Amino acid sequence: MKQTECVQAPTGRDHVAARGMAWLALVVLWWAAPVAQATPGPDFSALFGDSDFIEIIERDEGLETRPTGYVSQDAEPDHVFRIDLDEGQVPIGQGVVYDGFLIDGKLPGPTLRVTEGDIVRMEITNSGDVMHGASIHAAYTQTSKHVGHILPGQTKSVTFRATTPGVFMYHCAPGGHAIPMHVMFGQYGMIVVEPRDKSYQLEADLGQEPDLKLYMLQHELYASGKEAVEGDASYTAFNGQLFRYVENPIPVRPGDYVRMYFMNIGPNLLSTFHIVGIVWDYVYWQGHPEARWPGGQTVTTGPSDSWVIEFRIPPEEGVYTMLDHGVGATSRGAIGLLDARADADTPSEVLADGPTYDEGERAERIGEARRILSPFGIPAAETNPVPARADRPVRFGDDVDEVVIEMKGNSFYPKVVEVASGTKVTWVNEDVFTYGLGETSGAHNAVVMSGPQSFATAMLSHAESDSVTLTEPGTYNYICAPHPYMEGRIIVRDPD
Amino acid sequence: MKQTECVQAPTGRDHVAARGMAWLALVVLWWAAPVAQATPGPDFSALFGDSDFIEIIERDEGLETRPTGYVSQDAEPDHVFRIDLDEGQVPIGQGVVYDGFLIDGKLPGPTLRVTEGDIVRMEITNSGDVMHGASIHAAYTQTSKHVGHILPGQTKSVTFRATTPGVFMYHCAPGGHAIPMHVMFGQYGMIVVEPRDKSYQLEADLGQEPDLKLYMLQHELYASGKEAVEGDASYTAFNGQLFRYVENPIPVRPGDYVRMYFMNIGPNLLSTFHIVGIVWDYVYWQGHPEARWPGGQTVTTGPSDSWVIEFRIPPEEGVYTMLDHGVGATSRGAIGLLDARADADTPSEVLADGPTYDEGERAERIGEARRILSPFGIPAAETNPVPARADRPVRFGDDVDEVVIEMKGNSFYPKVVEVASGTKVTWVNEDVFTYGLGETSGAHNAVVMSGPQSFATAMLSHAESDSVTLTEPGTYNYICAPHPYMEGRIIVRDPD
Amino acid sequence: MKQTECVQAPTGRDHVAARGMAWLALVVLWWAAPVAQATPGPDFSALFGDSDFIEIIERDEGLETRPTGYVSQDAEPDHVFRIDLDEGQVPIGQGVVYDGFLIDGKLPGPTLRVTEGDIVRMEITNSGDVMHGASIHAAYTQTSKHVGHILPGQTKSVTFRATTPGVFMYHCAPGGHAIPMHVMFGQYGMIVVEPRDKSYQLEADLGQEPDLKLYMLQHELYASGKEAVEGDASYTAFNGQLFRYVENPIPVRPGDYVRMYFMNIGPNLLSTFHIVGIVWDYVYWQGHPEARWPGGQTVTTGPSDSWVIEFRIPPEEGVYTMLDHGVGATSRGAIGLLDARADADTPSEVLADGPTYDEGERAERIGEARRILSPFGIPAAETNPVPARADRPVRFGDDVDEVVIEMKGNSFYPKVVEVASGTKVTWVNEDVFTYGLGETSGAHNAVVMSGPQSFATAMLSHAESDSVTLTEPGTYNYICAPHPYMEGRIIVRDPD
Repeated sequence: MKQTECVQAPTGRDHVAARGMAWLALVVLWWAAPVAQATPGPDFSALFGDSDFIEIIERDEGLETRPTGYVSQDAEPDHVFRIDLDEGQVPIGQGVVYDGFLIDGKLPGPTLRVTEGDIVRMEITNSGDVMHGASIHAAYTQTSKHVGHILPGQTKSVTFRATTPGVFMYHCAPGGHAIPMHVMFGQYGMIVVEPRDKSYQLEADLGQEPDLKLYMLQHELYASGKEAVEGDASYTAFNGQLFRYVENPIPVRPGDYVRMYFMNIGPNLLSTFHIVGIVWDYVYWQGHPEARWPGGQTVTTGPSDSWVIEFRIPPEEGVYTMLDHGVGATSRGAIGLLDARADADTPSEVLADGPTYDEGERAERIGEARRILSPFGIPAAETNPVPARADRPVRFGDDVDEVVIEMKGNSFYPKVVEVASGTKVTWVNEDVFTYGLGETSGAHNAVVMSGPQSFATAMLSHAESDSVTLTEPGTYNYICAPHPYMEGRIIVRDPD
Repeated sequence: MKQTECVQAPTGRDHVAARGMAWLALVVLWWAAPVAQATPGPDFSALFGDSDFIEIIERDEGLETRPTGYVSQDAEPDHVFRIDLDEGQVPIGQGVVYDGFLIDGKLPGPTLRVTEGDIVRMEITNSGDVMHGASIHAAYTQTSKHVGHILPGQTKSVTFRATTPGVFMYHCAPGGHAIPMHVMFGQYGMIVVEPRDKSYQLEADLGQEPDLKLYMLQHELYASGKEAVEGDASYTAFNGQLFRYVENPIPVRPGDYVRMYFMNIGPNLLSTFHIVGIVWDYVYWQGHPEARWPGGQTVTTGPSDSWVIEFRIPPEEGVYTMLDHGVGATSRGAIGLLDARADADTPSEVLADGPTYDEGERAERIGEARRILSPFGIPAAETNPVPARADRPVRFGDDVDEVVIEMKGNSFYPKVVEVASGTKVTWVNEDVFTYGLGETSGAHNAVVMSGPQSFATAMLSHAESDSVTLTEPGTYNYICAPHPYMEGRIIVRDPD
Repeated sequence: MKQTECVQAPTGRDHVAARGMAWLALVVLWWAAPVAQATPGPDFSALFGDSDFIEIIERDEGLETRPTGYVSQDAEPDHVFRIDLDEGQVPIGQGVVYDGFLIDGKLPGPTLRVTEGDIVRMEITNSGDVMHGASIHAAYTQTSKHVGHILPGQTKSVTFRATTPGVFMYHCAPGGHAIPMHVMFGQYGMIVVEPRDKSYQLEADLGQEPDLKLYMLQHELYASGKEAVEGDASYTAFNGQLFRYVENPIPVRPGDYVRMYFMNIGPNLLSTFHIVGIVWDYVYWQGHPEARWPGGQTVTTGPSDSWVIEFRIPPEEGVYTMLDHGVGATSRGAIGLLDARADADTPSEVLADGPTYDEGERAERIGEARRILSPFGIPAAETNPVPARADRPVRFGDDVDEVVIEMKGNSFYPKVVEVASGTKVTWVNEDVFTYGLGETSGAHNAVVMSGPQSFATAMLSHAESDSVTLTEPGTYNYICAPHPYMEGRIIVRDPD
């Protein structure tokens, strides 16, 4: 599993400044003498190569609105970010371990930071067992054909120019049905594009940079794919751990200038972030410095919506509680503390990355877990002594002659059923995006892996069903063939 | 069933221009010599007739904020829109047919477009079996007394001036409890008021009109009224069909200027619309050109909230995926594609109307359906081989002595129960707006239509209940008398 | 139970004006001659006393953004608000009584109004049986250490300067897990900070003050703590009563200027407020006069988000319906009417306080209730003839050998179970914030209060469980010891 690296291109900022001047010249030229626009200079060529759409690029460079993010895939990057997509387990606090999809072995993935105008290359490796991919919201250009489908073992990359300042999401996106699924299963992170020339207002007001840059992701964790589709979250968290900043409050000093980069990943719930004792100085919609409002107590933030929030710690020591004011969510984990003391050692930044553990610590926490939370699998009973509701077996009486198991959100629901022998078991596919086959489709079947009898249903499109009747008592473990992480179990008992 | 017609009034724009100058003169006069304001000129009289509130109208015409939408019901319209309200079935894709309430036989209804300042007449016909009505969010004036209650067979109209630019919802609104019900059941559409004098910013930046005007409604579909009240959607869609623009991607060219008129109908879920590979150039809250923000990756949009979104297709071919980034919703249908190719034939507009079918095609699709989705009825088993969860019978064992059926969202829940003979069946009305009687109230009862025994409960207000005990085995079909589309079924089985 | 009082400090506005001039002088001095800033004048000292952070205060007084709300706890207040926190029952309309947590015996609590720059003292008394506290969103300063923990019988206070205009929430906040719980259970209200120097735009446009100031809170009511955590609301309301303004429409005249102070308390659902027949003149995000947008049909408002909304009643009589356009919520209670008539007697203001009753009226309404709604208790059957779903007993058959009861949202779920003797009953704590013990923690146990056998589980942290097996038939009533209002019941029946 590789870690993120940020490689500063050798030419660095001088390179960009030179390029910027070249653009400026080009733009001036373009406005002054339209005839000249068909002959871009050498820097232009380095950025845009032999694009078939050079006239569009030239048009866009000269606009009042900024250019798109398109550059040649050969353009020299200012930043290279390498991330790794995989499946696995991470501790999330309160004795719970999450078994889902990860970036760099973490949930959320690394916090990526660039400056407006930077050329960014993302190199994405799939170290997992299923196809992954990437969607990078800071990229105002085609990305899906470059990094939309990355097979296990493959590395792919995409290069773009970050032209819009703001707080953006990036996430796994292998296409189709798998886009929502892989987001629900945990593969996401934050990428921030800092404005280049104009900063945020409180920096001007105070005449200083922030004392603390606080990168904060709110996100949800689900015990089954069905609950994920329906927005029935087991937990919410800030930056990957339940009550992370209750257990380790963020130290600040009275008077500190805090700039918060807040994003709600969702993937379903609204967040209205609030801090007890703080009224915002300024908020910036999706982090754009020109989309500014003063005041306010909360920020209403849908999934993949974001804000930059600026405030000062008041001149009084004490604890300032951060929470989602949709308090059902708060009670499930999205709460933390800023602890203001005069002698505090305020960190210059707190990143949105999920916690990292060395291998020993990770193994120890997993070993001590009271609960494994898996949106699609059935955690082993010995490591999951107090299962989430979705993992508790559902027992049907002897007088039940048919049981329906829904396939929804790449999970079976109920995951585990106990039935009398001779009961008809019917699967209905309630996933809707069932074009094609394979992991990126929501088409499902049920295929036995172990048990007294063999069975396999047809491959089911949306609102299709198939049934089996099991007569041999025993335990049947089955999966969905194109989604082998989808686990179901049928316990057939002897007739009384 | 009639279709929408847009009738351009004969005097057209010259008429309006003349009237505009008359107003201007009036306003100038009003400010310059307040004494003169009590003697409005002839155009003023044509617009405002013999209003009892002429002083208010005069005050409002001269404000920095715009006038309200009030005009005399006799004012000559620039547009006449005729829509038809009915109940019926429409295919919604993926083998599913929706059985609900429709406008012009479609879901959503027709996309209506006018320009700021236009006089608009809506003529609304009720071709259905229950009372309907209309609420038109672009109308800043009394509408409910004109078109709030339209009986079956009636046509009513309302005339207003569209004074605020933006993207608005219109929908059925027969009053009281029926307002939320008829919205939940599918009667809605989009009405856009284009700004007259100032356009949207990207038009100025690019010096051209949009290549594509894309009108997009997101909406939810429910399998039962109870699930509709609780926000437990079976499906979400863009413009009336699951994956409509996955099956038929919208063709665009790199460089195209797209203006999107986006509205989330809801009726319950939040939408955060996003396009993979696009960062917005500008967004305009509820489509008002002066409520503008630059940048951003999503728009957080509650039910009946809207945005104009402007962006360019980047200079690279490929697919740009449109989705609600609340990905539980995405997985249920709210996803589509913009397919960028250099040789594409970009349509000048894509309307938000639901698909239309000729009668043969409609009948064929309904005949081939795998599922009928009905928020209040019980689809016949032969046309509904794989029912939604809400339509699956719920079987109670012999040791159950009482079963509770909730009335909620103008539906019975469970819709179908199987009980042993002698079981007490109790209905509880969980609808809350139960003032009055009739279809526009949430007062309910249960009256047998067929079965071995007759029964009828009392008419129930909120949190009232009534019971029957059925001893004769057989199948009982019953309805709610004031909501005859509300269907319930009790299967009484012989005691063992 | 005490009522709110507003005490005007003797020095009143002259005092503030003088202080204002002193600040101005200070600020001028500070900019002109930084050396002087270390010697604040006497007013400065009265406000900020012997703060350890005087340099921060001086910095903040001179900023382009406003100061924080910090003042010395000894500063002389312009307003003293006294509120009382308690537990109890209130009628909420439609035959339903709510049994939860209250402020001044009401739900919502009193509407508090101050002007930007005012010094505010909140004196908060706990007349209840459990710890309470307060969070006041208008206070941009430390409050939790002053009023975060108020024991039964105690009165505590906090003094702050209201420096940001807007519409804010205040609510009970005893810390930790109890913050979301006490909000869910009903302890909240509105505090408005009117701008001092600049008013809202429509006041300038019209050259008059509003005819009607309409303070409106939308909020949800829950039948169990579990449903409260999961956002499954039984009811929604405006200002504390289902259909309050349907039963008593608010009278207005055509042409009236209405300023609405709208806040969505939540605590979970989004609101998109709309009025049929009205397009807004202006909306102000969270009520800040500088965060203004024109037009629009709705305001998307998450929990603890707010808007000032300005509009005029159109020049036509009739009813204008106010509703949350998330219509599932509407159907559960969030609907009301503005009734426009030429001869109406428009009230100058409508407050957001919940209804008040004299003791006789209150007792009568409670006595006549069809339903008691209690998020954590089990209402007595005689006063609760038609219980909410969460209060209906859940009966398990003789072949069930284990029943799981979740502890969630300070409630047991199911609240009432019936099992055969010998059935194993297992409690799982699904509350997540389970640090510490006591009412402010989500750690729970189950301790019998009455029944044939005694039992007590271990105190359970998150995702911990404990079991008992009851063999003696009969009815067992039990509670959670640190949350004695949490009631559960097990009915053990004889084996057949």
